[in-house]
Amino acid sequence: MIGIGAGDPEQVTVQAIRKLNEVDVFFLLDKGQAKEDLVSLRREILDRYIEQPSYRVAVAEDPQRDRTAGDYVGAVRDWHQRRADVYEALIRDEVEDGGCGAVLAWGDPTLYDNIIAMLNTVLDRGTVEFEFEVIPGVSSIATLTARHRTILNQIGKPVQLTTGRRLARGFPEGVDDVVVMLDAHCTFAELPDTDLDIYWGAYLGTPDEILVSGPVAEVADRIRTTRAEARARKGWVMDTYLLRRRASSTEEPPG
Amino acid sequence: MIGIGAGDPEQVTVQAIRKLNEVDVFFLLDKGQAKEDLVSLRREILDRYIEQPSYRVAVAEDPQRDRTAGDYVGAVRDWHQRRADVYEALIRDEVEDGGCGAVLAWGDPTLYDNIIAMLNTVLDRGTVEFEFEVIPGVSSIATLTARHRTILNQIGKPVQLTTGRRLARGFPEGVDDVVVMLDAHCTFAELPDTDLDIYWGAYLGTPDEILVSGPVAEVADRIRTTRAEARARKGWVMDTYLLRRRASSTEEPPG
Repeated sequence: MIGIGAGDPEQVTVQAIRKLNEVDVFFLLDKGQAKEDLVSLRREILDRYIEQPSYRVAVAEDPQRDRTAGDYVGAVRDWHQRRADVYEALIRDEVEDGGCGAVLAWGDPTLYDNIIAMLNTVLDRGTVEFEFEVIPGVSSIATLTARHRTILNQIGKPVQLTTGRRLARGFPEGVDDVVVMLDAHCTFAELPDTDLDIYWGAYLGTPDEILVSGPVAEVADRIRTTRAEARARKGWVMDTYLLRRRASSTEEPPG
Repeated sequence: MIGIGAGDPEQVTVQAIRKLNEVDVFFLLDKGQAKEDLVSLRREILDRYIEQPSYRVAVAEDPQRDRTAGDYVGAVRDWHQRRADVYEALIRDEVEDGGCGAVLAWGDPTLYDNIIAMLNTVLDRGTVEFEFEVIPGVSSIATLTARHRTILNQIGKPVQLTTGRRLARGFPEGVDDVVVMLDAHCTFAELPDTDLDIYWGAYLGTPDEILVSGPVAEVADRIRTTRAEARARKGWVMDTYLLRRRASSTEEPPG
């Protein structure tokens, strides 16, 4: 499981490059036409960093989550099992005894990505024998804050990482800084709070990168329009953002 | 501002290496004898990755925070201003017109590190003219979860990043997964919760790396002892940990 950075091929680490060169077979899960760009970016990384290209690429279809199901957690768990089936088959059928297979992961492989959980599921099943190692990568969050030249956390303050789905229930309590992943609905624009700044980024680290920041009230419409246009143009969009409360509600008590 | 990974020189990215080779002067802030290891690890990275070593190193003393002050936030703000003074002087006195100075940052430069905030403070003062760029790095959190081969977040769940000082007030509400930074007091061992697992790591990514995981109730004493021994032996310790609630209190509502 090799983290390859948030999208810029130069965000790959020396450790990841060394590991890439030890791999016999790379698993590429095809997510349909909209994600073709991402597959070709992965191939670009292989072409660029592997010195003696004797590796194979095993392509499998990535099971889709049922986005119409009423039971969100149930649908995600079902999807998880079907993805685990795919990885189990890849490990059993594509990797020779003593060989090495790899999955390339955007950003940090441990953050809002369930491949590690799936590999642990496959291990628990006991149907194929293997060991795995995780090579950490530069996350999209680190890239977002770096590109905006801002810190993730304020002095001594906590930060919450959450999803658009959860943000829809309201700005989390007890924190002034919230990073939102997996938000297809620009949920920030629906919040009643009037004291929020946003640091938004799409296609982080790639030539298509878009950055917008400012008070939510002032830039929300611009982000929505920009996002919709980019999505229409490229067929897909990956974005993330940091919301920061200007007027602190969690000031440290004195003493 | 160049992120250089959590401690393993191989965690440096291709982008960071390219930037290292463009730098005229590196700012190294001396934090006293206990941090000598970290300074020498930085020098090792320079030696290893810079091809034509024509750079200079400017060493300055890192102002200490008044840890005895009753007013925590005030003491941190005062420390922040004094560190900004040091960076202002370094930029003014050590970098020639059109030249390039750099600060190397462990892990992700935007996470529980205040150098970006200080550079913005110096910019706001308007006393020296400069631009800066932030090169993101692999964070200690990504390294922690990768080494433990666990995910940071559970399916669709939020994660909170916080400090030992805040954890002392209790496990944060609304989350089952909490990453704790800057905890010198093994605060996890003081929590009343009986349903927590811990994934703890010290000196992550270095040859001295120590990992311990398990139910807090079972491993807390071992972590405390291990941490104290390591600290006594090396003169310093840097550690971080993930606390995960086993019995979920924030289950997704159905529908």
